[in-house]
Amino acid sequence: AYTVYNHMLIPRVFRSLKEDYEHLKSAVQVWDVSVQRQIEIVGADAFRLLQFTTPRDLSQMEDNQCFYIPVINAKAKMLNDPVLIKRGHNRYWISIADTDMLLYYQGLATGFQLDVDIFEADVYPLAVQGPLANELVRRVFGSQVLSLKFFRCQTVTFQGKEMLIAKSGASHQGGFEFYVEGEEACIPLWDTLFEAGRDLDVFAGCPNDIERIEAGFLSYGSDITIENTPFEVGLGKFCDLETVKDCLAHSALVAHQPPSRQIRFFEIDGKPLPPADYRWPIESIGGAKVGFVSSASWSPDFAFNVGIGMVDKPFFNNKDAEFIIKTPLGKAGAYMREKAWI
Amino acid sequence: AYTVYNHMLIPRVFRSLKEDYEHLKSAVQVWDVSVQRQIEIVGADAFRLLQFTTPRDLSQMEDNQCFYIPVINAKAKMLNDPVLIKRGHNRYWISIADTDMLLYYQGLATGFQLDVDIFEADVYPLAVQGPLANELVRRVFGSQVLSLKFFRCQTVTFQGKEMLIAKSGASHQGGFEFYVEGEEACIPLWDTLFEAGRDLDVFAGCPNDIERIEAGFLSYGSDITIENTPFEVGLGKFCDLETVKDCLAHSALVAHQPPSRQIRFFEIDGKPLPPADYRWPIESIGGAKVGFVSSASWSPDFAFNVGIGMVDKPFFNNKDAEFIIKTPLGKAGAYMREKAWI
Repeated sequence: AYTVYNHMLIPRVFRSLKEDYEHLKSAVQVWDVSVQRQIEIVGADAFRLLQFTTPRDLSQMEDNQCFYIPVINAKAKMLNDPVLIKRGHNRYWISIADTDMLLYYQGLATGFQLDVDIFEADVYPLAVQGPLANELVRRVFGSQVLSLKFFRCQTVTFQGKEMLIAKSGASHQGGFEFYVEGEEACIPLWDTLFEAGRDLDVFAGCPNDIERIEAGFLSYGSDITIENTPFEVGLGKFCDLETVKDCLAHSALVAHQPPSRQIRFFEIDGKPLPPADYRWPIESIGGAKVGFVSSASWSPDFAFNVGIGMVDKPFFNNKDAEFIIKTPLGKAGAYMREKAWI
Repeated sequence: AYTVYNHMLIPRVFRSLKEDYEHLKSAVQVWDVSVQRQIEIVGADAFRLLQFTTPRDLSQMEDNQCFYIPVINAKAKMLNDPVLIKRGHNRYWISIADTDMLLYYQGLATGFQLDVDIFEADVYPLAVQGPLANELVRRVFGSQVLSLKFFRCQTVTFQGKEMLIAKSGASHQGGFEFYVEGEEACIPLWDTLFEAGRDLDVFAGCPNDIERIEAGFLSYGSDITIENTPFEVGLGKFCDLETVKDCLAHSALVAHQPPSRQIRFFEIDGKPLPPADYRWPIESIGGAKVGFVSSASWSPDFAFNVGIGMVDKPFFNNKDAEFIIKTPLGKAGAYMREKAWI
């Protein structure tokens, strides 16, 4: 199965969601995540423009470091939750979720008359994910890649050309992301990884919705929307209100604290549920509507349904609380937790 | 078949592309085009913000009038080609093609510190298209809708609520678009139209790629991209360079004239071609690469393949010119024309 993401096709399933999930957790997968478009911001005002749009303090970021950042508008509402990569002094890549951030940055830069160039770079990310990812990438690029720390990048050489590789990826199983520049190198890199990983059971893969929910990775467009502040979606830890006064939403962020609703995780009783392709109402035991589920899946490993949902005040503070969720299969009891499962 | 457009599902085919096409050209269809999201811009600076982003003169626009506008960035590159609707003084809806224009307008407004509110309105457009559209809509809303001029709107009453209706739509067969406010009215309106049009052979439909190409309607994302100026994609007639100096791209537009390539239409020889899901190279008879085809389809009515493509200077000026197009079925001769077919 496929879907459309950043105006491109992204695979959703190769064999079945469950087979892909089991394979991802036990072997190694190669993912074509070209849809993670890289918006390059370069020029004298690049740092300034980026700090305008995020409350996370970017001032201490080092070259070749990755930061997961909330990107918000002036009203402190979430526009995207990309990974920012510092390529050098005043040169950044934003590895975007599914909204046209190029347009927001071009609009802001034009309005503020900033000295920056903003464009979609000719880059096609390819991820290697799974418990055997280290071994596969070591075989092709040598053991120096094993020293790479989480959310750090280095360059490797592939077929005579330099290529950025990061210790990162949209799974909790460990692995790397290659930032392939120019489409010519994509298929050769794919083929090389498959050749080297034959005995590791390497296979094609993609972000897996079951594993994503188990790991508590939120998805922009379902779990996070433009209706949310960072505090609501668990990104308060990236709001450096004391040190970052230049974020355009600074006063809005202060005003939106504390949040009136928050993301929580749910273990949902009953039979395996279909994916949540609309918002399932969450009710208190007393019958009050207290929120909605935005993502859900049956977890084969835990043998219960896992879900992500937004819960209103004061219910999100209840410890060991039980709720009722109106699923497509009927009402189901659910246990709320603050953290994801893996 | 479906695709994703503005982060929502839009139907592409109901019966077959050919059956849908024949039915659209002979009867009447109801289209769920909710994906045409309405970005509302309202406030003291609404007109100013909009004129910043388009070279088309908006100063004489009347309430309830629709304008097809090129929307461009400061470098005069196309960001979208929406239909703009003036709802009242300093209140507009932009009926967008498939890019997140909300983000561009929010970025610009924040940077210029404009007094506007910009949000996605709770509106779900529904189109009625085809030669029998007049008759169907007359039956439900009375004959006053027949006096509506092209690209003008009026309000009608449906189940006690006012609703905007425009003489417009993404086909060349004539018809209307309803701007349904609030999702509650969508299904009732759909059902009412089907009930009233049973003997008119009313059926579900969607923008049809064959009819679209025959009519020369360009599609943002394939025929038009951020690489293009308005001049390149045949929108020079909407560049009012003399009267509109406030468009942020004014000097860039002047610099980009005359264009070095232009959209043209092609009659392509040979057997029915598959849809152009990548760019097919166009060559001169002498073998020079002179452009690419971005949309193509077999036309049942004309009994040849119709195509839309971009052609470099000086070849786009050649009258009665023949070219070679490298299609998935092999090389095919093609005849270039300046206008579409219907």
